[in-house]
Amino acid sequence: MTAQELRSRTHILGAGLIGSSVGIGLVAEGWDVTIEDADAQAQTLAQSIGAGGQLGAAEPELVIVAVPPSATPSVVAHALDTWPGAVVTDVASVKAPIAAAADSTGHGDRYVGSHPMAGRELSGGLAAQGDLFKARPWVICPNGATSQAVERVRAVAHALQCDIVQMEAAAHDAAVARVSHAPQVAASAVAAALGPLHADDVALAGQGLRDVTRIAASDPKMWADIARLNRSALIATIDHIIGDLEDIRDADDVGEAVTDLIERGRLEVARIPGKHGRPQRAWTPVTVIVPDVPGQLVRLLGEAAAVGVNVEDITIEHSPRQPVGLTTLHVLPSRAEELARALTDNNWEIAAP
Amino acid sequence: MTAQELRSRTHILGAGLIGSSVGIGLVAEGWDVTIEDADAQAQTLAQSIGAGGQLGAAEPELVIVAVPPSATPSVVAHALDTWPGAVVTDVASVKAPIAAAADSTGHGDRYVGSHPMAGRELSGGLAAQGDLFKARPWVICPNGATSQAVERVRAVAHALQCDIVQMEAAAHDAAVARVSHAPQVAASAVAAALGPLHADDVALAGQGLRDVTRIAASDPKMWADIARLNRSALIATIDHIIGDLEDIRDADDVGEAVTDLIERGRLEVARIPGKHGRPQRAWTPVTVIVPDVPGQLVRLLGEAAAVGVNVEDITIEHSPRQPVGLTTLHVLPSRAEELARALTDNNWEIAAP
Repeated sequence: MTAQELRSRTHILGAGLIGSSVGIGLVAEGWDVTIEDADAQAQTLAQSIGAGGQLGAAEPELVIVAVPPSATPSVVAHALDTWPGAVVTDVASVKAPIAAAADSTGHGDRYVGSHPMAGRELSGGLAAQGDLFKARPWVICPNGATSQAVERVRAVAHALQCDIVQMEAAAHDAAVARVSHAPQVAASAVAAALGPLHADDVALAGQGLRDVTRIAASDPKMWADIARLNRSALIATIDHIIGDLEDIRDADDVGEAVTDLIERGRLEVARIPGKHGRPQRAWTPVTVIVPDVPGQLVRLLGEAAAVGVNVEDITIEHSPRQPVGLTTLHVLPSRAEELARALTDNNWEIAAP
Repeated sequence: MTAQELRSRTHILGAGLIGSSVGIGLVAEGWDVTIEDADAQAQTLAQSIGAGGQLGAAEPELVIVAVPPSATPSVVAHALDTWPGAVVTDVASVKAPIAAAADSTGHGDRYVGSHPMAGRELSGGLAAQGDLFKARPWVICPNGATSQAVERVRAVAHALQCDIVQMEAAAHDAAVARVSHAPQVAASAVAAALGPLHADDVALAGQGLRDVTRIAASDPKMWADIARLNRSALIATIDHIIGDLEDIRDADDVGEAVTDLIERGRLEVARIPGKHGRPQRAWTPVTVIVPDVPGQLVRLLGEAAAVGVNVEDITIEHSPRQPVGLTTLHVLPSRAEELARALTDNNWEIAAP
């Protein structure tokens, strides 16, 4: 039986957003799912919205631990002890400490780490949706698990139509520290540095600051848990960032130090993958001044479609004191001029990119 | 004569992107504009695309210095000496050192600082557009200038349809260090910290990292100039950021330190103004799974418009290994559910926000 066909009798521990969403998604695929939560109300809610039934006498073949990160190591260890025939996985965004807790039970061969990477951070079973993870990466860390155990967990990610990525736990934790955890902390630090400014001064902010600080509006509690579990990789990354900032602070020529850092940063930004895993394309921006009334955006995109130009990305920047917005359409470089001309012909005002 | 009506005989020094764009914009408004550049080819190009004519015998009433930031203080001082009847302004993104250079000539009463804040950083006269600054902030720092001098410069910003913001040079420099210069450096430092990762690990990057590092792809040379001119305000901000990062590195409880920083950052992010200068709205995201083929986006927005829901912002996230994208429409909280239902009825797949 391949992973694609393998539908384990699955028990989910934790009926929050992640656990409930996994439950709804697997039930929709015809899996036999049960779900429980220490909070009786959360459990009842999850069961009532179709995230799974009540655990009965049959021992689960697969246990998915979906409790907060800080509780995950002990709940995983407890699940391995409680159900000696079951494969156990979890969904926390840090993997090595949980693998260590699993190994310490002597049943590490039945533990497989998972990290489903949903796009946004919400919470609560009420927000659950069966396709929460669809088209997003689901990292699987086999650690010391048997290949059969890994297949059971891959089948979950496959059923939920995820983009499966398999890697070692330590490599995962080092990677997410740099691509996710430290950027979160740095974004908050950039935002916190606005503290001394008056409101009028903050109003000078442009799209750059908005981009850098967008993730700074995240849930502090969840990030505290993640920081505790991934402390060493997070601190190593923060030290890297502090070192680069100190080099600028202490440089004899601050301009030279900034040039060096920006050049190194550009090389790394170019490695962040774009569409479909291909190298990132240099789309050409076409910026249009759009009156801020309903229906303008669809009219704009309709005219782009009419000339056959595919819009690869859109950014919208609202003007702080005027009733217009600047909408930037990112298109193939070879089509940008044609698009700008067609829009101008249709009385759109093209602004600078 | 009000600033709105005041069309000075204007001479522009520097025929790069900014100088040429200002020239084109003023010529389009019927101003008498001349433009020159130390690079004869750049000057000819600017004149040929309508950014201004050749300086003749008539002394300019207004001189706009649009040379690279590092050269601006000396060129401003020289202009004040050369044309004793002219008001002089400049367009550099740092203002206090230039005001000091102007004052040192003894003609500070004829110098007014300007900082037109274009959205993106490009360069070269070829990219010039008359509406480069339209609907964007144009900061004016009067310093020791007479009110008549200030009126001449306000008239430029008014003619180019900018959002005029008047403030003192030192306050401007402190503000842009925090809203622009330090975020640029921090974004580059976050990007540079990806250095130790393998390409497969960088591929775990989500929208958060892309947002934080978007501005890290900027031009190093221009930022080196800016860092040199605004060194003390930049370093003060970087020190603020280093201090917050060190608190996390050195905390007994890294979770508590992260919670504190994120909470402070959230308060600041809430101060960044949103649409039309009103406090930022909490739009509700509706995320849709969109097949990556031309025309889907316009179809999606058309259906949103058909139910009368105004889309306030859009973010598009491409799935690295699948032929679909996740498009998030940000709408009024009261309309989100209705929009999601209407889209579902039309066979769109709604994903988690």
